[in-house]
Amino acid sequence: MSQVDIQAVKTYLLQLQENICAALSAVDGDQFRQDSWERPGGGGGRTRVLEDGGVIEKGGVNFSHVHGDGLPPSATAGRPELAGRSYEAMGVSLVIHPRNPRVPTSHANVRLFVAQKPDAEPVWWFGGGYDLTPYYGVEEDVVHWHRTAKNACAPFGDDIYPRFKNWCDNYFYLPHRGEARGVGGLFFDDFNQGGFSHAFGLMRAVGDSYLDAYLPIVQKRKDTPYGQREREFQLYRRGRYVEFNLVYDRGTLFGLQSGGRTESILMSLPPLVRWQYDWQPQQNSEEARLYSDFLPRRDWV
Amino acid sequence: MSQVDIQAVKTYLLQLQENICAALSAVDGDQFRQDSWERPGGGGGRTRVLEDGGVIEKGGVNFSHVHGDGLPPSATAGRPELAGRSYEAMGVSLVIHPRNPRVPTSHANVRLFVAQKPDAEPVWWFGGGYDLTPYYGVEEDVVHWHRTAKNACAPFGDDIYPRFKNWCDNYFYLPHRGEARGVGGLFFDDFNQGGFSHAFGLMRAVGDSYLDAYLPIVQKRKDTPYGQREREFQLYRRGRYVEFNLVYDRGTLFGLQSGGRTESILMSLPPLVRWQYDWQPQQNSEEARLYSDFLPRRDWV
Repeated sequence: MSQVDIQAVKTYLLQLQENICAALSAVDGDQFRQDSWERPGGGGGRTRVLEDGGVIEKGGVNFSHVHGDGLPPSATAGRPELAGRSYEAMGVSLVIHPRNPRVPTSHANVRLFVAQKPDAEPVWWFGGGYDLTPYYGVEEDVVHWHRTAKNACAPFGDDIYPRFKNWCDNYFYLPHRGEARGVGGLFFDDFNQGGFSHAFGLMRAVGDSYLDAYLPIVQKRKDTPYGQREREFQLYRRGRYVEFNLVYDRGTLFGLQSGGRTESILMSLPPLVRWQYDWQPQQNSEEARLYSDFLPRRDWV
Repeated sequence: MSQVDIQAVKTYLLQLQENICAALSAVDGDQFRQDSWERPGGGGGRTRVLEDGGVIEKGGVNFSHVHGDGLPPSATAGRPELAGRSYEAMGVSLVIHPRNPRVPTSHANVRLFVAQKPDAEPVWWFGGGYDLTPYYGVEEDVVHWHRTAKNACAPFGDDIYPRFKNWCDNYFYLPHRGEARGVGGLFFDDFNQGGFSHAFGLMRAVGDSYLDAYLPIVQKRKDTPYGQREREFQLYRRGRYVEFNLVYDRGTLFGLQSGGRTESILMSLPPLVRWQYDWQPQQNSEEARLYSDFLPRRDWV
């Protein structure tokens, strides 16, 4: 049996935040600035933000490590027996909103949760994943994204990728729009399969492969010319991102309910967003293809 | 005892929608366009929208009348004994987002709910109110807004205005920001005091006084010059409006949960919105005065 090693996870997560910021900065040309913060209830974090960069219009890569006396409802919806346990949660969470509408938005998150009570074994699980939200879909990019995800999961069993891909499609879905948020990727939660080291290994495989999945797409698309039309469509579609994050996202709701740091949690929201009443893409347009060819659930690899 | 007269309420609400649209159009110069829609689950509505007008950047004035078999949780949070009853709900709901940052956003709503079950008296109640969200506060405007609200409530008892004003302050509050959405006004729900005609009379007094409260402010401020700085602050503050409506607003959640018409429900969202990480107003600036002098709870009349 492997031991719960919270410190090892913390060391990994802080390094992951470094690596991701360094790689994204290198592409962007601008640096992330850093805010360290403490949470009155216990714990704190290190928020890194890049706004108005060369490629990234707004991006945040957060590390946080919080603990508290009672798990909030959003964390125990699926496990009511844990309600009221003290907890420790740490993770890296990021959202990158590029300026160019030809570059997709991406989101990634890896996290460890530990729920404790006196005289009982700690209950722990990992969660995370990454998902891609294009404005103008490019098939080869989406295939690359999913192939990278699949390869990262492969050492942990052939069932992992299809399970997490499916979970991602189910999770990043807006019922009131009848629409996926994007083209998916991986999503997992409550993962403790194979003991702590094995499960931690899976989380690392997901965390480490995010840059492999995203950077090549950014590199390929960042210099594509675009105009007012593409920009307006991007701002409009960003509205869906806001709707998902504020109405449905468990991480956002957990953060707000647990008295998390609002500015770090809502850093995921896009820099500029547009809502227009009952807007519809023109038939057979590139915009219509997002709805017809990319948002409906598909097997990409 | 007075009878529940649903038809009379419907006639009033349709006329109220007409009156409000006509008066706002006259100030704006542009017309509202109309969409009638039916709800698959029962009922429908008449949505009126004005986008990109002379004064109004985006405004919607909705009438809806829906019915269903089981009340959704957002409608019975305070009255669990009604869960599962069939219901009928009708109302007028509006949000006006002016383009000029010197003109406040306003929201108003009046509604009737009837919960029914076989072999039992129908349970009915009225709800509604209106509230103002300035970007640049002007004391005389806020005093006018609240005085109009107070006068409208006066015939129904001296306790009504303070009760509904307080309710409004409590309701339009963003816990994760520690901030009010705006300067308040009136909010009430579950109102059946004095029997149906009396309660309906109160709802009418609220509905009829909205234009008296809002139009003079629009007229006075719509031609105030403004620049990039004011516009950016307005877009930034509109983010709070989105946060409130998607995270907390009972009407929005009820609409989305009950399979309402998404475009009509989310018509309340502003046309263009900005989020910026950890933005703070400059000390002693006009923007700082919104936070120090207008958003904190105050007695305005």
